Amino acid sequence: MPPEQLADFFERFRNVLGLKSATESRWLAQVAADLPSILLDHAHCEKKAASTALNLLVAYGTLRPQICRELSEIVVEELEHFHRVLELLTERRLKYQALKPSGYGRKLNDLVRKNEPQRAIDRLLVASLIEARSCERFSLLREHIPDRPLAEFYGSLFESEARHHSTYVQMARHFGSADEVHQRLEELAAEEAQILRAGDSLPRMHS
Amino acid sequence: MPPEQLADFFERFRNVLGLKSATESRWLAQVAADLPSILLDHAHCEKKAASTALNLLVAYGTLRPQICRELSEIVVEELEHFHRVLELLTERRLKYQALKPSGYGRKLNDLVRKNEPQRAIDRLLVASLIEARSCERFSLLREHIPDRPLAEFYGSLFESEARHHSTYVQMARHFGSADEVHQRLEELAAEEAQILRAGDSLPRMHS
Repeated sequence: MPPEQLADFFERFRNVLGLKSATESRWLAQVAADLPSILLDHAHCEKKAASTALNLLVAYGTLRPQICRELSEIVVEELEHFHRVLELLTERRLKYQALKPSGYGRKLNDLVRKNEPQRAIDRLLVASLIEARSCERFSLLREHIPDRPLAEFYGSLFESEARHHSTYVQMARHFGSADEVHQRLEELAAEEAQILRAGDSLPRMHS
Repeated sequence: MPPEQLADFFERFRNVLGLKSATESRWLAQVAADLPSILLDHAHCEKKAASTALNLLVAYGTLRPQICRELSEIVVEELEHFHRVLELLTERRLKYQALKPSGYGRKLNDLVRKNEPQRAIDRLLVASLIEARSCERFSLLREHIPDRPLAEFYGSLFESEARHHSTYVQMARHFGSADEVHQRLEELAAEEAQILRAGDSLPRMHS
């Protein structure tokens, strides 16, 4: 996809997902050069997404019991995706093994404020941005990778990631006002765009 | 149930579950005196059981991919149980809130050896013993609590906890020989019995 088409593509999602930048074509070059690493990293991302949701349930479930059900549903969905990626790895004779992560998740988590309830808001909004970016990238993978079953798989994940993004933003509203959550999401989304602009030499889902 | 009946009851489960002691009638007195605390603690136990299984998947999934599926299934089942307990709390107008845990889990986790693969074996066997003890206690609850829907609920959980116990022991076999796992389970089960013999003044699922 040439740069101007990437920009168009992004415009379709920006309002829904709250992202402040479009993925650059540099990332698609990483995908083309090393799809196996992207796929393996994706397995780790799904596992981490399940862990994140369960950690949030452990941290905040007693304070806000109304978020327990949605967090559990995210755990279960992310685990299902994890196993679908494991199957895709197996079908392609790729091994599920340890992989050095990109710096994306760590850099985002470093932005989380230390005191409650700001900490809860930030943890939920960081989770929402990771889901949003995954959603955008899955769409790009669906359009760009020549392995058709894999491309269709990424198409099938798009809806759930968009929904998780929106669920996390709504959950943040249990810890702060609509204005506060909106403003903080704008700030964190700007930081997220900055992190991706710097890029990562490792070919990863969020490099 | 008088002490001699408790002993009979226990004999039925000992061989299957690997436990080295029967629950003492003192615990049933705690249950009779404060069932709401037992029920609230149970919600926390199910949530912790889901976390434990997911943490094991994160720690050992790349080393032993064959345990990923079973661990995921345990996560999903424990989350289902967690939500069933939350519903039971709501029906009884009890609040899901923070609760100081008994010392049982911490004392068992202190027994986990530091180096791999012994650490993996111990983490899995400690999980298996907690499932075994839960199984025994759920059976006692089914027979002893006068709240019939609640008693039936505990009856319904019995099978899955027994299965989880057995699954964890089998998983430990991926990290050590049958003899090694068997011997270590005997040791840890003896320690577990010792921990319960000391008791806990807080009325909890594993006090």
